[in-house]
Amino acid sequence: MPSAEVPRRRVRGFQHERELVRKFWKAGFAAVRGPASGAKVKVAVQPDVVAIKDGLVLVAEVKTMSRRSTLYVRREQVERLKEFAKRAGGRAYLAVKVIGEGSWRFVPVDTLPTTKSGNFRIDGEVLAKYAVRFEDLVRAFDTRSRRLDEYLRS
Amino acid sequence: MPSAEVPRRRVRGFQHERELVRKFWKAGFAAVRGPASGAKVKVAVQPDVVAIKDGLVLVAEVKTMSRRSTLYVRREQVERLKEFAKRAGGRAYLAVKVIGEGSWRFVPVDTLPTTKSGNFRIDGEVLAKYAVRFEDLVRAFDTRSRRLDEYLRS
Repeated sequence: MPSAEVPRRRVRGFQHERELVRKFWKAGFAAVRGPASGAKVKVAVQPDVVAIKDGLVLVAEVKTMSRRSTLYVRREQVERLKEFAKRAGGRAYLAVKVIGEGSWRFVPVDTLPTTKSGNFRIDGEVLAKYAVRFEDLVRAFDTRSRRLDEYLRS
Repeated sequence: MPSAEVPRRRVRGFQHERELVRKFWKAGFAAVRGPASGAKVKVAVQPDVVAIKDGLVLVAEVKTMSRRSTLYVRREQVERLKEFAKRAGGRAYLAVKVIGEGSWRFVPVDTLPTTKSGNFRIDGEVLAKYAVRFEDLVRAFDTRSRRLDEYLRS
């Protein structure tokens, strides 16, 4: 049981992160969930999930939304995620759990449209245009071609 | 402040893990601390620290000991760490904080001597023979030669 001190909303967040770690693990990845720092001060950048397969690295912040809703993500959070991915030589994604459908969509942060204030905005249209399904993401990591490797590190 | 439900010993453990994540981050790595699952059920394998630099991956369990003491590590813990490293295409270490000296030593689990019961045993002699200093570890990750890359993934 989680501590009663942890807010309910945050607890649900953990569950989604755990679910995603399990999915990556089952797909043959090494996957780790970042620390549950919650309200505490974060040390450096700690993504929600880091998944690795044979040196190919994926880092993600986990979000939930419905097809009809709009999700805003603060620019700082995306920048921190990008910095982590840059150091790791990997790719940064927003891992979006689509409530209602129960499926996951992965939006590469590099192609993410920004609002006028520089924050990021995701809605059903953005998901349809930019997001990748879990199965396709996993398949991309399975292709051990030199070309993919270069693509992922570019 | 950590929750009062978290045992004191475990809190000190977190502090060492945080310190190590900071050290790796300062050295240019992307580094993440595993979740503070404590008494809770661990999802898959969750190492204490994962540090990555340009696709080169290091996973570690964090331990503390003094030069004169002997540290025993359960075989299952080492096997889980190895499995994570294998999937990630990285290397597994026990990151030992040497109390008194205040320094870190990294023992590659592949070369770790076992007891008759198959568990692992670390003392001052093992540290002297097998352990690597933080600075040397970082330097090895800085060499971007193909040779090192192959060595680390072998």
